[in-house]
Formats: sequence, structure tokens, C-alpha cells
Amino acid sequence: MIRVLVTGGTFDKEYDELNGSLFFRNTHLPEMLRLGRCHVDVVVEKLMMIDSLDMTPADRARIVEECRVAAESQIVITHGTDTMVETARALGDVFRPGGTKTIVLTGAMVPYAFGSSDGLFNLGSAISFVQVLPAGVYIAMNGRYFSWDGVRKNRETGVFEPVS
Amino acid sequence: MIRVLVTGGTFDKEYDELNGSLFFRNTHLPEMLRLGRCHVDVVVEKLMMIDSLDMTPADRARIVEECRVAAESQIVITHGTDTMVETARALGDVFRPGGTKTIVLTGAMVPYAFGSSDGLFNLGSAISFVQVLPAGVYIAMNGRYFSWDGVRKNRETGVFEPVS
Amino acid sequence: MIRVLVTGGTFDKEYDELNGSLFFRNTHLPEMLRLGRCHVDVVVEKLMMIDSLDMTPADRARIVEECRVAAESQIVITHGTDTMVETARALGDVFRPGGTKTIVLTGAMVPYAFGSSDGLFNLGSAISFVQVLPAGVYIAMNGRYFSWDGVRKNRETGVFEPVS
Amino acid sequence: MIRVLVTGGTFDKEYDELNGSLFFRNTHLPEMLRLGRCHVDVVVEKLMMIDSLDMTPADRARIVEECRVAAESQIVITHGTDTMVETARALGDVFRPGGTKTIVLTGAMVPYAFGSSDGLFNLGSAISFVQVLPAGVYIAMNGRYFSWDGVRKNRETGVFEPVS
Repeated sequence: MIRVLVTGGTFDKEYDELNGSLFFRNTHLPEMLRLGRCHVDVVVEKLMMIDSLDMTPADRARIVEECRVAAESQIVITHGTDTMVETARALGDVFRPGGTKTIVLTGAMVPYAFGSSDGLFNLGSAISFVQVLPAGVYIAMNGRYFSWDGVRKNRETGVFEPVS
Repeated sequence: MIRVLVTGGTFDKEYDELNGSLFFRNTHLPEMLRLGRCHVDVVVEKLMMIDSLDMTPADRARIVEECRVAAESQIVITHGTDTMVETARALGDVFRPGGTKTIVLTGAMVPYAFGSSDGLFNLGSAISFVQVLPAGVYIAMNGRYFSWDGVRKNRETGVFEPVS
Repeated sequence: MIRVLVTGGTFDKEYDELNGSLFFRNTHLPEMLRLGRCHVDVVVEKLMMIDSLDMTPADRARIVEECRVAAESQIVITHGTDTMVETARALGDVFRPGGTKTIVLTGAMVPYAFGSSDGLFNLGSAISFVQVLPAGVYIAMNGRYFSWDGVRKNRETGVFEPVS
Repeated sequence: MIRVLVTGGTFDKEYDELNGSLFFRNTHLPEMLRLGRCHVDVVVEKLMMIDSLDMTPADRARIVEECRVAAESQIVITHGTDTMVETARALGDVFRPGGTKTIVLTGAMVPYAFGSSDGLFNLGSAISFVQVLPAGVYIAMNGRYFSWDGVRKNRETGVFEPVS
């Protein structure tokens, strides 16, 4: 069983056709898992629906706590890409290698609602990595996985890359 | 570096608007990797473009041979789902655990050209599994991975499941 | 009020992911009108769901009869493109200029379910032409309208063109 | 021959995946006409690429002037919906019934790049209305056409409706 914790991010942004702005309504994760014909046992829990630039220390503390109390040993977190590394650090300080939980954060550069481009790919990637990586905290983006303490988002290119 | 061997299958089927039939033209794998914002080093090689129901022993021998001569130790094969298990067996007889190559077959239930549903998800999954699974031959479908000798396609549901 | 008579055709073809064939299930017309934000008063009636190559004289007689008994003076018929001209002729023999009914046949080259390309465009076109053209029978394809007795489908290009 | 004047609007908005905002890059009109299999003779001219809320009197004067000098008697204008009625009025003051030009403004509630929903439908509609309506200035939205002086956008619903 994999637990998917939804926090919002580009993944779940939608277009408000009345005022032309982007907003959050509900999560598309269940639909994405269905379209992906995912048949892994997954439970989806919506923690919050926010832009990761708006995520507070209290929000991060809540994510850490939800991971702590989760019965599942495999956890995927969908998250905005802008501060994904920061949340990964908050988790990495708590969930150490040699522990019992594998936590994989993932996100999208393009909203699912605007034509599932990288969202479905990244979700397939995160669901897969979380099943085979040893306990610890990781980011799965761009087809790769990174340890929480060895990754940054390149803001020029939008690509996640290892910290040299 | 990951080598992606393309053999056709539902992944790459297109709709011929002049006669209303499905056919193969060219592979969508490079476009799918681009849309998925995949930044793993990948080389895509088109071996054949066929429905897997039309795959002959000679075709399978060629796939085995291409895997044998590949310089890369991580290989993803896109393949029609109908005989994917059969090709996995042909590979499994040759590439044994303890070897040097990790080979992951994947496919799609819906053509990419008809609205990327499971194709992008499965591609993200296969690209991820191949990076972390030990040497051997696997099928990655429905968010799961299976050893080549422990899987079948359920023809009623279209879902891959473990052989009990 | 516009009556939309659905007869099937490429418009409504779907992909059967279990056996890889194309088939008819239900009409997408209501969804297409909703996506198009169409706010004309429209009633959709599903007459049949068939490939127009399979349409019989009895089917055509039924279409003519449905148009005859319809209370609406504006009728759009969705139809496979292969024999659309033939059905237009059957209608044109009955509904003459100077009558009370404007009938517009339209169709699609690509199924709506495979990424609404020409379907939405043609539907918007037919819904518009039927409101402003004088009584008679027309085909609306490729952004144009044609009188029932002055059009053919070019089978090489898939484009409707005037008979010279 | 129909002239399509592009002014921007929701039609052509795109998503900037680096900063998560909406912006204009280039027009999608030629691609939309291609996907719609439109075979009417059309010339597309990009006048400006702006949100219609940013449109100035000088911009409107330019649109009027472009219509005046156009050699074509059928003109479609793609335009943001927020001030489409205002631009229609500027045109309606100049191009009167009994003149030689039929001008149809249209737009979209959802960007084409986010999954062509109403854009293709409205384009098919505008291209059709412009060919059969008498000289004058019209808005084609929601499957209907309205005279320039008898329409407003309902800001609660996003739907264009007649002024009673």
C-alpha cells in the first residue's frame, strides 16, 4: 500500500474561465491514477491545496507529522516545485536512512488540466521509485531520483539537478 | 545512460483519417520523453513498428540480440501488451539475475496519439524502475513491476497481474 | 431550437483498449456542445450509432422520416463522411428550397475521443450555418457549406469539394 | 477569401512553466484552422497579442483601420471576451448594414493550449457565420451570433446574451 499525500502545486492548478486566473479546486490525483491504469494499492489524502511558494513552516510541520503517523511505509507527496527541496529537507531531517519509511516527493511543471504532459510521467515515476528505493527521503523529477540533500531546482531551466 | 528499444505496440498506433483504420507511422517516444521533461540520458532506437500479435520468433531473437550488444546496462523496451510476456520470457532465458543488464518492458493500453493516458504514466514508471532494479528482466505495467517469469496479462481486464 | 440527429460516424468512434479496435458506445455530442459552451437551444436525438458505410436504404428512409416529423425547422445531422453525400441526396429529394426546413449534415475525420480536432470545429460550423441558411439540404465540412447536389468527398484527400 | 485578424485574448494565452503565469507568445490560429481541416481560403494577420482588458482606443482605431483597408469583404476578428463588445461597437459605428463588409468577432473562454474546448467550436462558428451573414458587425459566441449593438457578456456566467 502506498500513501499519496496531496499538497497542491502546479499538478492541481486549474484555469478559471470567468476571470482568467489560475486557482486550486480539487485534486486530480485519483483521475490521474485511473488514467494511468495504476493498479497498485494507493490511498490518496489531500492535506492542503496551495502553491508551494505559500507553504509555511506550520504546513511543513504538518506534512512531517502526517508522514510520521502514516501506517504505510511508502509515501508519495505531490508538491509545488518551487519549494519542494525545502520540504524535502524538513522531511530528511526526520526520516533517516535505515528507518522504515521511503518518501518520494514529486510535482509537475505544467498543470494536469492543461494537457497532462509531465504530470502523468512524474506520477508514474514517483509511484515506481517509492516501491524500490530504500528508506529515506527523495525527490523524483525529470525521470530521475535525488536524495533530499543532493538536489536543487534550476530556476533558469525548470529542471531538477544534483548539487555538485 | 538508458537505451529505449521501440518495437511498436499500442504506444505508437495512429489513426488514419482517410480510411478510419489504426496504423503505425513513426514512434512517439522522443516526443513523450520531451513532454515528460525527462532529463535522464536516453537513446531511443526504433527496432520495428509492429503489433505484438504479429511478432515472430525472428523478431524476438532480434530484440534479444539488440539487448546483448547494447553498451548500456539499463534497457527499456516498448512493446504491445498482447505478447509482452512472451518476449519477456525470451529475454529472461538469456539475461539472468546476477548478470549486468536490467531490462524493463512496458506498453500502453491506449495509443499516445489518442490522448496520452497510460502511455506517459507507464513510460515514467519504466524509466524509473530500470534505474533501481537489480539485473534481470521485468515488466512494468499498471504502476507495478513483475519478474518476467511471474506475470500474465489478464485478457478480461487488460491488467497485468502476478502469476500465483 | 435546433434538433441534432446523431447517426454515428467517425465523430463518435471510440477505442476499445481490450482488443485494440474502434467501436461505437454512446454519442459525444452533448459533451461537445458543453465544451463548446454552446448556448443555443439544442435537442440531441440519437437515431443510430453506425459507420456510414453500413448505412442501409432503410436507415436513410428513417433519417428522412425523422426530419419530416421534427417540430424544429433547423436540423443538424452528424454522419460518417463516407456516405454523407448519399444521405444528403436522399434528403434533398424531399426537402426542397422554398420549404420550411434547413438541414445541415456534418461529420469528422478524426474521432472526438482521440483529441477533438475537426469535430468541434465542424460542429460549431454546422450549428452556425443551420441558423442562417435558407431552407434546403446542405453539407457543412472543412469550414464550408455545400448544397446537397453540388458536393463530393475527395477520397484521396478526405476533403469535401464542389462538384464542377 | 476570409481575413482573420488576430488580436490575442484567451484564445492564444499560454502557460509559462517557469513562473506559473499566463502569457502570450504566438497565435494558434493557423494550427487551429489546420486541425479543423478548414479548407476555406483564409489569410491570418496578427495585429496584436494582448489581453482585451489592456486594449486602448488606439488599438481599437487600428482594428477599425485594418478592416477598412482589407481587400476581403469577410473578416473574422479573434478577441478577448472582456471587451469584445466595446470593440464591436467601435466597428459598428463605421461598418453599417448595407455596406460591403461582414465582420464577425469571436473569442474563447479557455485557452486553446489548455485543451481546445470552446476555441475550435467558436472558430468554426465564426468562419461559418461570416460567409452567410449580410454586411455588418457581429459577435459569434456560444453557437449564436449577435448584432454589435444587441449583445453583452454576462460576467457571472461568462455567456454572451442579447440585450433586452
